[in-house]
Amino acid sequence: MPSFGAVEAGGTKFVCAVGTGPEDLPARMEYPTTSPEETLGRVVEFFGEQAKRDSLAAVGIASFGPLDLNPASPRFGFITTTPKAGWRDVDLAGPIRRALKLPVAFDTDVNAAALGEHRWGAARGISTFVYVTVGTGIGGGGMVEGRLIHGVLHPEMGHMRIPHDWRSDPFPGACPFHGDCWEGLAAGPALEARWGGNCRRLPLDHQAWQLEAHYLALGVANLVCTLSPQRIVLGGGVMRQPGLFPLVRRQTLELLNGYIRAGDVIDRIDQYVVPPELGDNAGVLGAIALALDVAKA
Amino acid sequence: MPSFGAVEAGGTKFVCAVGTGPEDLPARMEYPTTSPEETLGRVVEFFGEQAKRDSLAAVGIASFGPLDLNPASPRFGFITTTPKAGWRDVDLAGPIRRALKLPVAFDTDVNAAALGEHRWGAARGISTFVYVTVGTGIGGGGMVEGRLIHGVLHPEMGHMRIPHDWRSDPFPGACPFHGDCWEGLAAGPALEARWGGNCRRLPLDHQAWQLEAHYLALGVANLVCTLSPQRIVLGGGVMRQPGLFPLVRRQTLELLNGYIRAGDVIDRIDQYVVPPELGDNAGVLGAIALALDVAKA
Repeated sequence: MPSFGAVEAGGTKFVCAVGTGPEDLPARMEYPTTSPEETLGRVVEFFGEQAKRDSLAAVGIASFGPLDLNPASPRFGFITTTPKAGWRDVDLAGPIRRALKLPVAFDTDVNAAALGEHRWGAARGISTFVYVTVGTGIGGGGMVEGRLIHGVLHPEMGHMRIPHDWRSDPFPGACPFHGDCWEGLAAGPALEARWGGNCRRLPLDHQAWQLEAHYLALGVANLVCTLSPQRIVLGGGVMRQPGLFPLVRRQTLELLNGYIRAGDVIDRIDQYVVPPELGDNAGVLGAIALALDVAKA
Repeated sequence: MPSFGAVEAGGTKFVCAVGTGPEDLPARMEYPTTSPEETLGRVVEFFGEQAKRDSLAAVGIASFGPLDLNPASPRFGFITTTPKAGWRDVDLAGPIRRALKLPVAFDTDVNAAALGEHRWGAARGISTFVYVTVGTGIGGGGMVEGRLIHGVLHPEMGHMRIPHDWRSDPFPGACPFHGDCWEGLAAGPALEARWGGNCRRLPLDHQAWQLEAHYLALGVANLVCTLSPQRIVLGGGVMRQPGLFPLVRRQTLELLNGYIRAGDVIDRIDQYVVPPELGDNAGVLGAIALALDVAKA
């Protein structure tokens, strides 16, 4: 029985694992994200050791972006315009593929997490859905009729523009590219900058969380209008704030105002806007799911 | 050689046609949209006459919405929450299917137009794209990896929320459901209400068109971030304003600000945001394309 390799490439840490699914992840290692050479060297070393024990069929890489996912591009497998120091225009998939001589699948961390939730988690049996993570940034991936969304690049849902009432919220937004895009207004760094540090202890009826729910609901409602998903999975550190989900659900319904008359949205909002089920292993399991698919292909 | 029936169901007129594609539409009739009974009676009569001459394999219906497109729903084939008097909760597909005893395909006018542009027009050979019409409303449809987007209902792209600077544009928006959503700010009725009548004769450097291009670009940039389309086709009466396309393209690039680093977007924006190619026959040809697909299935 072959096993599969997984790389979750994040801005602060890389996670490598070997396994076949949520119940079978026998090996797992974390490394801090340092220079590309050092970090990728550790990834290759990890899988080299694992390959002595397991027969690896493929490796899946789930990475922070933006990425070049176009197989016809000379920069296929690269991280491109990231603001992260040292990681701009870095070939991520190439060194791993060449060192391990295995099929390598490569996608955004959020598309991979979407695929993982589709196979084992909150989007099982659902063909058109969105997975959004709200943490140090906002990223989104998803499927339409069972196909991951790629298109001309890959979704960058966090960078959509949403209404921003400057009178009630003078914070200019934290996105270095767009200022007050969705991510710029609602990701973790915006929360911290707007309210001066950790706002986890602020009560749910504090303006901080009311405004956060409002911004999150604006993005969610826009995703409903644009992609017509059958479910929206909201993950990431910010969404772990107790009580935030009900606020986002209520404000989403208020924004849609009865126009999108689908029972799954209006009558079952609790099952429509949901947390992920794969928890801290979402990225690694998404990468396993990518590897499973490339090995089948 | 079988022929195909097409119904373009619009709020002001219904167009019926028979044919196989852009070069072959031998029969075509237009009826004003009156009561459902009368209008659907004329549709059935038209195809009954045509069926005596041609062997019809299927009929495609491209309709204004919102629609119930869920084949498992008791209201499949219905127009649902439309504000159009007399047409709320009207069964459109059922009477046509029962009277003609033919396979009937049913989709939104914009998804049908997207399908038509995919088969014969501006989206030939492109698997992930969006078709948006800007006229009396704003509607959008499209494909991801060659599949029309349906999901929980169908896209209602015109109802996404975009930034609205009340200081420079105090117009509250014209959407009865959402006020200043994309359609509420940028569709034809908003243009007319904001500038007091027909603004077609205002010069392109008038604030009317600068603001219109700004709103259109906000929606286009959001579609880029959300769906990552390989092309965006903008149709409808408003887009026929000479000179509007270059304004929208330029403002879209400014809004994206280099973040979406895909050559097809940044270097070839003239071929990325484009007009449709099927002109006034887009709806009817989209319905023919729907009928072709249902006959094949």
